[in-house]
Amino acid sequence: MESVDHLADERGKASFDVDEMKVVWAGSRHVLELSERIARLVASDPAFQKDNRTTLGRKELFKNTLRKAAHAWKRIIELRLTEEEASKLRFYVDEPAFTDLHWGMFVPAIKGQGTEEQQQKWLPLAYKMQIIGCYAQTELGHGSNVQGLETTATFDPQTDEFIINSPTLTSSKWWPGGLGKVSTHAVVYARLITDGQDHGVHGFIVQLRSLDDHLPLEGITIGDIGTKFGNGAYNTMDNGVLRFDNVRIPRNQMLMRVSQVTREGKYVHSNVPRQLVYGTMVYVRQTIVADASCALSRAVCIATRYSAVRRQFGSQKGGVETQVIDYKTQQNRLFPLLASAYAFRFVGEWLKWLYTDVTERLQANDFSTLPEAHACTAGLKSLTTSATADGIEECRKLCGGHGYLCSSGLPELFAVYVPACTYEGDNVVLLLQVARFLMKTVSQLGSGKKPVGTTAYFLQVEHLMQCSSSARKAEDWLKPSVILEAFEARAVRMSVACAQRLGKFANLEEGFLELSADLIEAAVAHCQLIVVSKFIEKLKQNIPGKGVKDQLENLCNIYALFLLHKHLGDFLSTGVISSKQASLANDQLRSLYSQVRPNAVALVDAFNYTDHFLGSILGRYDGNVYPKLYEEAWKDPLNDSVVPDGYHEYVRPMLKQQLRNARL
Amino acid sequence: MESVDHLADERGKASFDVDEMKVVWAGSRHVLELSERIARLVASDPAFQKDNRTTLGRKELFKNTLRKAAHAWKRIIELRLTEEEASKLRFYVDEPAFTDLHWGMFVPAIKGQGTEEQQQKWLPLAYKMQIIGCYAQTELGHGSNVQGLETTATFDPQTDEFIINSPTLTSSKWWPGGLGKVSTHAVVYARLITDGQDHGVHGFIVQLRSLDDHLPLEGITIGDIGTKFGNGAYNTMDNGVLRFDNVRIPRNQMLMRVSQVTREGKYVHSNVPRQLVYGTMVYVRQTIVADASCALSRAVCIATRYSAVRRQFGSQKGGVETQVIDYKTQQNRLFPLLASAYAFRFVGEWLKWLYTDVTERLQANDFSTLPEAHACTAGLKSLTTSATADGIEECRKLCGGHGYLCSSGLPELFAVYVPACTYEGDNVVLLLQVARFLMKTVSQLGSGKKPVGTTAYFLQVEHLMQCSSSARKAEDWLKPSVILEAFEARAVRMSVACAQRLGKFANLEEGFLELSADLIEAAVAHCQLIVVSKFIEKLKQNIPGKGVKDQLENLCNIYALFLLHKHLGDFLSTGVISSKQASLANDQLRSLYSQVRPNAVALVDAFNYTDHFLGSILGRYDGNVYPKLYEEAWKDPLNDSVVPDGYHEYVRPMLKQQLRNARL
Ligand SMILES: Cc1cc2nc3c(=O)[nH]c(=O)nc-3n(C[C@H](O)[C@H](O)[C@H](O)COP(=O)(O)OP(=O)(O)OC[C@H]3O[C@@H](n4cnc5c(N)ncnc54)[C@H](O)[C@@H]3O)c2cc1C
Ligand SMILES: Cc1cc2nc3c(=O)[nH]c(=O)nc-3n(C[C@H](O)[C@H](O)[C@H](O)COP(=O)(O)OP(=O)(O)OC[C@H]3O[C@@H](n4cnc5c(N)ncnc54)[C@H](O)[C@@H]3O)c2cc1C
Repeated sequence: MESVDHLADERGKASFDVDEMKVVWAGSRHVLELSERIARLVASDPAFQKDNRTTLGRKELFKNTLRKAAHAWKRIIELRLTEEEASKLRFYVDEPAFTDLHWGMFVPAIKGQGTEEQQQKWLPLAYKMQIIGCYAQTELGHGSNVQGLETTATFDPQTDEFIINSPTLTSSKWWPGGLGKVSTHAVVYARLITDGQDHGVHGFIVQLRSLDDHLPLEGITIGDIGTKFGNGAYNTMDNGVLRFDNVRIPRNQMLMRVSQVTREGKYVHSNVPRQLVYGTMVYVRQTIVADASCALSRAVCIATRYSAVRRQFGSQKGGVETQVIDYKTQQNRLFPLLASAYAFRFVGEWLKWLYTDVTERLQANDFSTLPEAHACTAGLKSLTTSATADGIEECRKLCGGHGYLCSSGLPELFAVYVPACTYEGDNVVLLLQVARFLMKTVSQLGSGKKPVGTTAYFLQVEHLMQCSSSARKAEDWLKPSVILEAFEARAVRMSVACAQRLGKFANLEEGFLELSADLIEAAVAHCQLIVVSKFIEKLKQNIPGKGVKDQLENLCNIYALFLLHKHLGDFLSTGVISSKQASLANDQLRSLYSQVRPNAVALVDAFNYTDHFLGSILGRYDGNVYPKLYEEAWKDPLNDSVVPDGYHEYVRPMLKQQLRNARL
Repeated sequence: MESVDHLADERGKASFDVDEMKVVWAGSRHVLELSERIARLVASDPAFQKDNRTTLGRKELFKNTLRKAAHAWKRIIELRLTEEEASKLRFYVDEPAFTDLHWGMFVPAIKGQGTEEQQQKWLPLAYKMQIIGCYAQTELGHGSNVQGLETTATFDPQTDEFIINSPTLTSSKWWPGGLGKVSTHAVVYARLITDGQDHGVHGFIVQLRSLDDHLPLEGITIGDIGTKFGNGAYNTMDNGVLRFDNVRIPRNQMLMRVSQVTREGKYVHSNVPRQLVYGTMVYVRQTIVADASCALSRAVCIATRYSAVRRQFGSQKGGVETQVIDYKTQQNRLFPLLASAYAFRFVGEWLKWLYTDVTERLQANDFSTLPEAHACTAGLKSLTTSATADGIEECRKLCGGHGYLCSSGLPELFAVYVPACTYEGDNVVLLLQVARFLMKTVSQLGSGKKPVGTTAYFLQVEHLMQCSSSARKAEDWLKPSVILEAFEARAVRMSVACAQRLGKFANLEEGFLELSADLIEAAVAHCQLIVVSKFIEKLKQNIPGKGVKDQLENLCNIYALFLLHKHLGDFLSTGVISSKQASLANDQLRSLYSQVRPNAVALVDAFNYTDHFLGSILGRYDGNVYPKLYEEAWKDPLNDSVVPDGYHEYVRPMLKQQLRNARL
């Protein structure tokens, strides 16, 4: 490695303390140190190299993932890593694998839905990976609508067993990660049937493969569902298909924390409230929001560094050209994404707090905030994953042609990221849930029921319905109060307008369907307000380090003013701001870009990503892009020979006008 | 193949003559018949199968492409296909290959920039494929800014040769398709240097490889630049890297139509005007717009059919669920894309006319419309490719989880399509060119110079600056005049506002850089107006067939009103319409969706795509999605064995707690 730093100049321009910003990004000095240590551990271990991922065939790729997963687990044991460290290690290994589902869905499902006894039986096995589990909910014909699942679990009182069955082709389990080739067990969701009665969908622990020879147990058919989007990417994961031909499991493998089937086949509820499962959803979605900030920041880091390296146009004859990051259009596309990465980071942090709060309340039997917390996490999952997916692709485009090469890291990042818009709740379906919750909130405004948490701003509905923005000059748009009021007023007015129109429908459900496109926009407005307000809240904290807070304030304002411009139609049509005020906001946005410009590279340095993790030549820390791109090209298998395989059979006969006789 | 048609019901609902719509889509009955014949020819030829494209390694994939290209050429010769038929055949083979650049760039470059003599020498060789050519412009360090290229072509009067050289690493040619492994020749762009003087960038025909053994000629280094985005996709193309170490070519291989180097080394201009090259650009970009409508319509076809097959929610206990195409949110995402596909088709058709018009004028030495035609094609290239790239990904998301499988066809369609936003002019750079043209148009309004072609609406600037929309009820938004006026007024006002702000800058160039983000928005407004107005013009034609015109009118209105909603901020902030009118437009949009709904499947049937061309299980004509998805899964290489390769080394030791001793 050369020690030259092509971005040293850029780093010199920064007017804030990057090391302190790293602490802010990591969340704490502890997490920063831990992350750094584990990231270095992974980057320096040849077993975790990921160079050739995009050229491997599916089988080699997959085998390689198994190797990495085993090696990771070995290191976790050898080094006696804590849970926190182990999960960071998996994060930095940066390859989707069956272990994600084992730790991220199988274990939490048993913890959340299993009885004490079930947890005591299964969790130790899972913790030691003596069994490997996955989460088998989705079916070929049924995804978003979980209540429509067709797999059945019929209780047989004679043998004290459930019979798990796939009655139709569309009832085949389809998509579960880790299922296709690795998992020995699964939490399977199926319609519980006792005595001919359908009690709806419940979870069951089902062993799928023999622990001796890994063959599927009798009556079970399993396979991989095939190649997915992108090179490398999610193809390291064995998303699977699963069919049951009347497979029997003991009664005690139904997850019975909330409801049970007795020895006699009676279906009974425990005194554990159903809402408990919401807790798990809040947890999982909170991790998805955190992942969004990681993925987006990665893409932004690559695009920012490369934009500082790349030069096009603007030279006086022969002189150096302009860095593309100096073009306002580039800034206008890139800096809002940089701001979004920070915004999502902080809202993710807050969601972590929300989850703790919800958990504590649940333990104290306080369910009052649960619907709001649930709607809020659903909305934030949708908002952040959609913006991140689009943002990664925009970052790729910001890199011009070179962004299209796998060696830029961006194609794989995109391909591996996009399903986040679909799994754990399709983003549109989630926004519709948020909208429902908002409509309920509006409808209860007159009643005694007070809106809580992120909907508390509805308390000021009267003010927000008639206020008009006090912004008189561009700088007024730097005031948190001005921004907040505009976002609150927009969100309230859009919700109230929907509610009023809904009120005109005789059948509320019909109205909801009819107006759903508008309802979604109201939901988005609400969610954007949450992100903006949590960013503003964050900035009320004491944030040490020279210039750190100033930078964050700039980013917060960019995030808000960029959204304001993007959704200007909302703000104007609801009368929250005037055209004149909109234009002032835009002026302010532009001048904020100028302030971010000299700090841009340092702001992405603060993410503290290793080159190994970034996996991008364009995003290299040292900016040494061109020689490395050139080097990398020659590694492509097509370059194994100068004259390509196929030349003699197909190209030469063409050139020599001898195709007529050629055997093709 | 079963003969069941799961979409028969949907097809029965259509209220228009699908066969007549096919003619409209194709452009003429002749093209329709020709397309159908060639599409069937390709689909029925086993050599053109494309099933396993996404699982092949790079080398196999590429070899396969060579085979298909040779087979295609063989068939073209055997069947004595016309140029039109041959190009359709390549289109339906549906695999990027070196032939695209040979026919699409190498041949046109020689035609456009070569002298009569050069054309007579090189074109017959190219037409018979006795040589294979590519287009080598972009370098590792230089793309958008062609004037910044570093490769040199220095005239050596002693030997009457040019010496082609790559003086730096960044001067390496980088990206040219067909270069990496196949091309024997290239049109190379290099700085012409005579007698120590730099005359800027010119084109040269350079032989790269021996016609005997295909080895690169002396002084030439060539390779492939590596894997690109996606499985299959553009990896069938050998985008290449090329370096010259003082390679000599005869003087007569400089493309000399516009300027020449004499035997003595004097640089002279011919009497052929430089603007001629614009003609080629108009041509190439017109084909890109046509391709956009193809790619988008393909994605829309898949998403529409699958949305009619897919059912989620809304069932009364046990009954069938709702087709997702019946959800307003799904319609609100899908139908504007359907409308866009038609809109782009018609604007592409018009561009074809424009190209003919420009060519005729050029021949008559009339250059008056050229700048406008050039700006217009640049803008439409940018607009349609960006919308298509985003639209394909939206269609993928509209298919929920299953859209993420390669067997849906959508991931590959996306990956192969997106570089269209970058090549032939980065979309942002192109919009800046349009903006420059618009600013010039505005600045000349006072003068005698009249705006022509697509900028003719600037003639009415006074009216458009102060008019306000006459829409009073939702149905008013169905009137072409109402729509047109709103779009014209928006475009004019945005341009004029930019021009006024530009005027405040002492240095115009500085102002342009500073305001470029706003300028781009003005350019987009102008381009959208073009698409809308060409759609409206199309509808003034006589269009036969029951209900065909009605459907097209609906789509035209959806396209316009969807844009109006999406860019509502523009329309409101310029005072073109009021909030009330915006809300009426939205009401109208919603009711148009209801009219399109029963015709949706038939409207995508009218694209007349074979299942082979679509390459999508979700988009199958017969809607028989689930059994085929299930079948397809088992073909994945991972399913070759039940127990995966790697189990014994990596999974079993994990399960058996024996990793400590495992060799990983
Ligand atoms: C990479 C990946 C990994 C996955 N991992 C797992 C796993 O480990 N375990 C598991 O069980 N599942 C898994 N899944 C499945 C995933 O949870 C589902 O794909 C997801 O829930 C979406 O459901 P769907 O695919 O049925 O989409 P659909 O619901 O069929 O969506 C299709 C379209 O219909 C629309 N739509 C649906 N319902 C409505 C409505 N009511 N109103 C308006 N529009 C509607 C959607 O917005 C979408 O546009 C995974 C999926 C992917 C892609
Ligand atoms: C699949 C593919 C095939 C190709 N095939 C060929 C081929 O056959 N032959 C060939 O010669 N080339 C080919 N190219 C190269 C292609 O033409 C260039 O990639 C394209 O011109 C863009 O240039 P760039 O990559 O240098 O982008 P850059 O110009 O470096 O763009 C990087 C970023 O800078 C921005 N930017 C650049 N200039 C400005 C400005 N003045 N103002 C504001 N922003 C600016 C861009 O918008 C972009 O966001 C191909 C590329 C691809 C991806």
